[in-house]
Amino acid sequence: MVAVRNKQVIFKDYVNGYPKESDMVVTSDATISLELPKNDDRLILLKNLYLSCDPYMRGRMSKPFEGTYIDSFVPGLPISGYGVAKVLDSTHPDFKKGDLISGSTNWEEYSLITNPESLIKIQHTDIPLSYHTGILGMAGLTAYVGFYDICSPKKGDIVFVSAASGAVGQLVGQFAKLYGCYVVGSAGSKEKVELLKKKFGFDEAFNYKEEQDLGATLKRYFPNGIDIYFENVGGKMLDEVLPNMRLQGRIAVCGMISQYNLDRTEGIYNLIFLLMKRIRMQGFLVIDHYHLYPKFLEMILPLIQERKITYVEDIVKGLENAPAALVGLFTGKNVGKQVVLIAHE
Amino acid sequence: MVAVRNKQVIFKDYVNGYPKESDMVVTSDATISLELPKNDDRLILLKNLYLSCDPYMRGRMSKPFEGTYIDSFVPGLPISGYGVAKVLDSTHPDFKKGDLISGSTNWEEYSLITNPESLIKIQHTDIPLSYHTGILGMAGLTAYVGFYDICSPKKGDIVFVSAASGAVGQLVGQFAKLYGCYVVGSAGSKEKVELLKKKFGFDEAFNYKEEQDLGATLKRYFPNGIDIYFENVGGKMLDEVLPNMRLQGRIAVCGMISQYNLDRTEGIYNLIFLLMKRIRMQGFLVIDHYHLYPKFLEMILPLIQERKITYVEDIVKGLENAPAALVGLFTGKNVGKQVVLIAHE
Repeated sequence: MVAVRNKQVIFKDYVNGYPKESDMVVTSDATISLELPKNDDRLILLKNLYLSCDPYMRGRMSKPFEGTYIDSFVPGLPISGYGVAKVLDSTHPDFKKGDLISGSTNWEEYSLITNPESLIKIQHTDIPLSYHTGILGMAGLTAYVGFYDICSPKKGDIVFVSAASGAVGQLVGQFAKLYGCYVVGSAGSKEKVELLKKKFGFDEAFNYKEEQDLGATLKRYFPNGIDIYFENVGGKMLDEVLPNMRLQGRIAVCGMISQYNLDRTEGIYNLIFLLMKRIRMQGFLVIDHYHLYPKFLEMILPLIQERKITYVEDIVKGLENAPAALVGLFTGKNVGKQVVLIAHE
Repeated sequence: MVAVRNKQVIFKDYVNGYPKESDMVVTSDATISLELPKNDDRLILLKNLYLSCDPYMRGRMSKPFEGTYIDSFVPGLPISGYGVAKVLDSTHPDFKKGDLISGSTNWEEYSLITNPESLIKIQHTDIPLSYHTGILGMAGLTAYVGFYDICSPKKGDIVFVSAASGAVGQLVGQFAKLYGCYVVGSAGSKEKVELLKKKFGFDEAFNYKEEQDLGATLKRYFPNGIDIYFENVGGKMLDEVLPNMRLQGRIAVCGMISQYNLDRTEGIYNLIFLLMKRIRMQGFLVIDHYHLYPKFLEMILPLIQERKITYVEDIVKGLENAPAALVGLFTGKNVGKQVVLIAHE
């Protein structure tokens, strides 16, 4: 029986406030057998290649509480998350050695999967494997559902995307441009603002960290108001957007990353504009919309292949750098979709 | 030429904070001719019978500001609002002497109308005339659009209505019961709570003023959460409702009366639940939905005639009592729809 060391990333305990690298350990204490027992026909042994770092993971770092929509990480066990992996061995009839998959795996070199319901076999090997953690994964489907379904876009709509260079935002902006909308994005650095304008084709973009008065900024970029706000950040930005919405505007609430690490969320004072402007504001989570994945693939694959859409990733190498990558999401350190590369194949 | 004294209710100036009776004057200084000039064929002379007191009128008391959805009252001129009136004389081809109408009129005994676009001829004289200010007027259509359209109800849904004994709330509760929902209402007095349970058939009701901890109250009345929140009040109640919403819940924002008179609105801290519970929150104004009025009438008239729905009004007599009635809306003095009776016919 061949047992090898299995490097893992583990949360020591539940997290309060901003997560820190020191909340995690990277350890090679564990070992794993690379041969599967023959008496269980539902086992899959994965070699993990890419891991996805996602803002929603902050919710999983908190102590479990009533009403949460997602299981917390278990302190002491390797972090679970979305990733891309290669099947090293399988006793499961649907998977065989050599298959490439995306889906729920763990933050470790090798994972023994006993519940492969979330695993999808990767068919399109002409596309970078890492894309399956982002544009072809949760982020892509989120942008697709959020923009086309939740935002109810019309040609010519004026669209504002916050955290616009992130895994989801960059796609929403490009979808909106392809749809014939006018699109402005906000991001947290000069480099990101350049990306939005030069690489993703946003009509305008601004660095919110350089703006003293967000209300005035929004009036400057949206003299005629906003039809669609794709909400990724929450807090002050949302509060300033509300009075700048147009009649019958739509706000798709995809995330509120500015609020995840606060002990007490910020107050929103301008909800009266929901009434005055007859705004629809709707929260959504991609987990409710996976039935749309085949339809999404049909739309996105040609766009990628014909280079009508682009995707920027921020790939760090090695599990030992995974904690910094995950933590960096919450201070906007990443430029584009944050991915951790464990092995090329 | 017969000229008579015309008693009027007038705002002296724009209002800050809670409106007071002393913000208005009731005066008989003005006179009006009861004969129409013959050289204008678009004039209608009304004798006003009933006036409607509505929370939205608070918005019209404020100084005009950018982005408002509605014209402010003009200080020094009689208040404009919805009412029921009799046509005393008309040079307009669509109206004739003796017609009863509902629509936009002024807070005075007689009104000379030059823009009759909002006037609707009353056909169903078997129904109390005052009903045209409420259940058959703006409040009725608001409840209809708000519940059936904005709330997307399903049989068995758990519904919460705030300000539930008011002009709109009492109807929403009854519509929801007729639809097969479980309905709880909140109101601000013991008398109103009794009305909700005994007269309108709510399953449960509570007096929010007697509750120390609204969050705990909501947990008690909604151990399994809320599918539909019909929002009339805003502020603290909304903030406590959010964590108690169920997955895919709907919040119809019809009003936020607790916020209209504040210099600064209260902060809402729990919007993250829009995301966690995938909630749709939608503001609406009845002015966008008047095309549904005929369909609404078709539904509501038989319900009234067959006594399947009931409507409680709070009718004060005389224009001299109109300021107190209007002001009383904002402290919840009214029990049911607030109406001012000027003349029976």
